[in-house]
Amino acid sequence: MNADQTGLDKLTTPALLLDQQKMMRNITRLDARAQALGVTLRPHLKTAKSTEISKRVGGGTRGPITVSTLAEAEEFHAAGHKDILYAVGIAPRKLPRVQALRTQGCDLTVILDNVPQAQAVVEAGVPALIEINSDGHRGGLQPDDPELIEIGQLLAGGGMLRGVMTHAGASYSQRGDEKHATYAEVERRAAIDAAQALRAAGLTCPIVSVGSTPTAHGARDLSGVTELRAGVYVFFDLVMAGIDVCTLDDLALSVLTTVIGHQTAKGWIMIDAGWMAMSRDRGTAVQDVDQGYGVVCDEQGRVISDLIVGSANQEHGVITLRPGAAGPLPVFPVGTLLRILPNHACATAAQFDHYNVVEGESGVIDVWPRFRGW
Amino acid sequence: MNADQTGLDKLTTPALLLDQQKMMRNITRLDARAQALGVTLRPHLKTAKSTEISKRVGGGTRGPITVSTLAEAEEFHAAGHKDILYAVGIAPRKLPRVQALRTQGCDLTVILDNVPQAQAVVEAGVPALIEINSDGHRGGLQPDDPELIEIGQLLAGGGMLRGVMTHAGASYSQRGDEKHATYAEVERRAAIDAAQALRAAGLTCPIVSVGSTPTAHGARDLSGVTELRAGVYVFFDLVMAGIDVCTLDDLALSVLTTVIGHQTAKGWIMIDAGWMAMSRDRGTAVQDVDQGYGVVCDEQGRVISDLIVGSANQEHGVITLRPGAAGPLPVFPVGTLLRILPNHACATAAQFDHYNVVEGESGVIDVWPRFRGW
Repeated sequence: MNADQTGLDKLTTPALLLDQQKMMRNITRLDARAQALGVTLRPHLKTAKSTEISKRVGGGTRGPITVSTLAEAEEFHAAGHKDILYAVGIAPRKLPRVQALRTQGCDLTVILDNVPQAQAVVEAGVPALIEINSDGHRGGLQPDDPELIEIGQLLAGGGMLRGVMTHAGASYSQRGDEKHATYAEVERRAAIDAAQALRAAGLTCPIVSVGSTPTAHGARDLSGVTELRAGVYVFFDLVMAGIDVCTLDDLALSVLTTVIGHQTAKGWIMIDAGWMAMSRDRGTAVQDVDQGYGVVCDEQGRVISDLIVGSANQEHGVITLRPGAAGPLPVFPVGTLLRILPNHACATAAQFDHYNVVEGESGVIDVWPRFRGW
Repeated sequence: MNADQTGLDKLTTPALLLDQQKMMRNITRLDARAQALGVTLRPHLKTAKSTEISKRVGGGTRGPITVSTLAEAEEFHAAGHKDILYAVGIAPRKLPRVQALRTQGCDLTVILDNVPQAQAVVEAGVPALIEINSDGHRGGLQPDDPELIEIGQLLAGGGMLRGVMTHAGASYSQRGDEKHATYAEVERRAAIDAAQALRAAGLTCPIVSVGSTPTAHGARDLSGVTELRAGVYVFFDLVMAGIDVCTLDDLALSVLTTVIGHQTAKGWIMIDAGWMAMSRDRGTAVQDVDQGYGVVCDEQGRVISDLIVGSANQEHGVITLRPGAAGPLPVFPVGTLLRILPNHACATAAQFDHYNVVEGESGVIDVWPRFRGW
């Protein structure tokens, strides 16, 4: 640790740590895939919510991005991003904020899947992608829904039809590269079928946008697709490791915590990271291996086999041996620093106002603010 | 709605609403109970995290409070609170911040349950309560643990022994006043037994502190107890309603959301409040009635029977009929405003930076900031 670094023992726990080397490796990995697949990567920054990270994705060009809130759009536009997709179905009442950003030179596009939204965006002069339902998990129209053409014509009549987009969120519950490849093809098929239906009706469909972190990594061929979206690939997390999109060694985020006590008879180690720090996300509960509220690592970030945060209160976590593990429970005196790998990076990062940037076993080499809200 | 108020349709959804009348009714209810029981109420402000609310609890006296983080202690001390209990086992590395507050005139007390912590607080000159384990759910010593006396002597030797405290967190999984009364007695018994053990060893134990929202409302007799702690009683939530501590009509917090689409064939109404707004807390999942991610109300806050947020993504919620409900699904056009009652007020409120204060069907009559972090 060089003299400019802050030791981890100077941080108030719980604290959010971000391993920059791992993050950059994750970023480079998907950049390379997008290039190989011949599509534009449009990173989804709902996970990162940081302009320090937005300037590191996509080759550091302040290029096209995806956001989940207008607050993100405003922050990232102020940081220099000009091409932004707001990928949550537009509430008509939010259009004045969209118009304000567009007036400031931000090419902000919205998404929609129904006629009232299409009428509102045409009236507001805001371009839109039509959301396509590829896997039944959320919103969007089926590619063969007659309403697709009706909405396409409405948008095109107002000069506001940009294309189509889909997201196979169901891919998060599929394990293994083969299944992710299958879901990537489900996304691609739905998107290009919808684009084809619009084109057959005499409409243009320049943008064909697909993606999720599992399908982005699993896709074999994206012919007909123009752009790829993914968010959690930047950090990865236990849910992604649980479906084999990455390994535990790829996880760039962790929560630093302090041992504050023991309930020895129960095999409990008490820590000061509860659900307020880890979030209530229990995404691995439905996976092959339930990781509780997170996997325990030592202060340097090395995974401690079979040790998880078994339960959590608001500001208390309880470390236990994984069910079935032989033990014994390691001895961690009061004051010991540990790192916890989170189930879901989007949810855990949202509990903090900044990233403490580290590299491997370094101290804190930088502090990057995060924003939140809507 | 008078001219000074902002209509709910002017808010960016999702937005956090706080019904001030309901909150004040909840506050008054527990104030009256504490008075009847002859104990001091020390509200736990980990739920509220607002100095506007801290001045409304406990008779508006800026009286004794409980906190879950040192950030809360600092904020509430700056707002005029002098008597603060930090009720998470102290990490020795945090003592300099405690000392700094004490130097500024804040009578900040910490809690602990082991010898290394006791040694550290004596060295730092910080007074402490010893945490007692009344129901096996978290930290603390059994009242008959010999270590209690050892720690008591250590603290008393340094002039830092203030007393004992316990919290029957297991009461949250018990339904009905009878059971809460039983757990209140479990808390009282453990705390007064521990106090008695300390006194029998020649030590003083001026403070005997107990409480949780269910036990505070269920307690029949608190003889020997000096103070009562509770937090979520200020707002209440679906988890508290599910164990009959309150009714749905008492819930002071809700999340305002907008309908953004429909998947009619599936019986889904899509809204712009996902888990980022509601939190991932699914506390009612283990109760008699699983409320999903929340109970749906109309814009005015009237509960819509059998309608819940059945699932959630980061910024999307899916409203469905409750399993088994006959239907039909109500018709809510795109743009309709709804309110969602949360499972867990502490977790949902933490997702927002401010409360939009309303009264019944009023518009927004005030905006109160919240803080967070550690």
